[in-house]
Amino acid sequence: MTSPGVTLVEVGPRDGFQGIGPLIPTQNKITFLQRLSAAGLREIEIGSYVSAKALPQMADTPELLAACTAMPDVSPRVLVPSLKHALRALEDGVTFPTFVLSVSESHNRNNVKRHPDESVGEYLQIVETLPDNADLRLDLSTCFDCPFEGRVDEDAVLRLLEKLVPAKPGAEICLCDTTGKAEPQQVERLFSMARTTFPEVDRWAVHAHDTYGLGLANVYAAYRSGVRIVDASFAGLGGCPFAPGATGNVATEDVVWMFNRMGISTGVDLDGLIPVACDGAGIPGGQSGGRVRAAMAGRTATL
Amino acid sequence: MTSPGVTLVEVGPRDGFQGIGPLIPTQNKITFLQRLSAAGLREIEIGSYVSAKALPQMADTPELLAACTAMPDVSPRVLVPSLKHALRALEDGVTFPTFVLSVSESHNRNNVKRHPDESVGEYLQIVETLPDNADLRLDLSTCFDCPFEGRVDEDAVLRLLEKLVPAKPGAEICLCDTTGKAEPQQVERLFSMARTTFPEVDRWAVHAHDTYGLGLANVYAAYRSGVRIVDASFAGLGGCPFAPGATGNVATEDVVWMFNRMGISTGVDLDGLIPVACDGAGIPGGQSGGRVRAAMAGRTATL
Repeated sequence: MTSPGVTLVEVGPRDGFQGIGPLIPTQNKITFLQRLSAAGLREIEIGSYVSAKALPQMADTPELLAACTAMPDVSPRVLVPSLKHALRALEDGVTFPTFVLSVSESHNRNNVKRHPDESVGEYLQIVETLPDNADLRLDLSTCFDCPFEGRVDEDAVLRLLEKLVPAKPGAEICLCDTTGKAEPQQVERLFSMARTTFPEVDRWAVHAHDTYGLGLANVYAAYRSGVRIVDASFAGLGGCPFAPGATGNVATEDVVWMFNRMGISTGVDLDGLIPVACDGAGIPGGQSGGRVRAAMAGRTATL
Repeated sequence: MTSPGVTLVEVGPRDGFQGIGPLIPTQNKITFLQRLSAAGLREIEIGSYVSAKALPQMADTPELLAACTAMPDVSPRVLVPSLKHALRALEDGVTFPTFVLSVSESHNRNNVKRHPDESVGEYLQIVETLPDNADLRLDLSTCFDCPFEGRVDEDAVLRLLEKLVPAKPGAEICLCDTTGKAEPQQVERLFSMARTTFPEVDRWAVHAHDTYGLGLANVYAAYRSGVRIVDASFAGLGGCPFAPGATGNVATEDVVWMFNRMGISTGVDLDGLIPVACDGAGIPGGQSGGRVRAAMAGRTATL
């Protein structure tokens, strides 16, 4: 029994790669994009338009974007943290920018050097500037917990959304657990409140980290609350550099496994994805995570 | 906000240790029991009465039982797979035997060399034999998935429960995900059906494995369905010897972390548990798992 369906957004090439020190050769990134696409992943965050000084690993995003023109099955998404970078991305032909801002002031200042209200202003300008053929996504960081301020109240998220949603209710809106400290009841509560408060939004997404093992529990909780767009990173790439041994994004192969078992289609071929995830876990300097890769590799080894 | 509460059953000394090849010195096991107790774990499955030939690691369970008489805060539980071993355990003064049988015939034959109906008969005899001062638990293996027969139907579990529950509705009944392949919707569904079908049972427990990363998601799903007794193994000990790299039981520290974040009391001191889990992960020949141990150890290392 397969019911339709969940859309996975593969964020490994952005969220997974960005913290890796040694530069991954651009051609290797292109090969990963091709292989992820071949495994059935369509929506891929390929990189970000940011300061090359701040995140040198992301400096080749324009080249990856160009390479995607030869991948008809890939819808490339690009993260942008400001109006300036958004305009640069749109000029380069990005058709699915993801604008990121944080609910908590201290995290927004630390991450994008602005008060959240300034980021709101820039988002509103991006909406006005957006060409007709472009889609738009909003990433709200620290929706559940902030590394500086601790637990984030649901009301703070809803208040921020009130400033953002009216400008473009049709945008895809992702509520992100930046620290991995969200718990599933909290996830269910926030998404239920958001969906009730903003019925005009029909594309909610969840971005979960697995640092404390709650990645899949939180994805399940979001699914339970009606969310049908799920971020994930192949090989669970995206470890936090400030917590050695701690892993990062929920692994794409774990999410696919869970939904497969639930009878819910993701369009991803798990057997095709596993070798890509194994190679992703082998990227020098990368921190990988997840369970299914090891479990399935072990299965293969003993057959 | 802390609401009461979930009872954790620490199964590491049984389910975690039993598959470890090199014999763990009995005194080391006793020290682990003392330290787990000091961290707030009260209900501990300390071992099993089984054939010493089949599971030599469990042969010192009587000595551990004797040692527990000096640990007033520990309620020791002992697994028994047959009437014969149950009687031996009761003779030795076990006051909380856990009888195990499988829903699927092939797993029961493989695990305890009997048809499930034979196991049912032995359970009924144990109920009759049980002294007044003893409690009793029933572990149903392969409630969701069988390594030989695949997915297990809910009706099969309910039919087996119909043969078992009436003899002692007051027993604690644990529905076990033996392979780690249960998914959270399935967990919610089975526990809801079981609770509705057998309202006279007031102690349901869940036993989850984390092989595919779904341990916490399934514990959350069980909690959502009203389950308030949760098995877990410190350090996530209990890897499957047939799947290298695959980890086993959901880690106690991960479960405590999740419920702490949810504001639900377990009575366990997480900071006290982490060093025990770190030492558990270092047991020669053991396969450890879980996320919180590494995340918190990393946190400490960077402070």
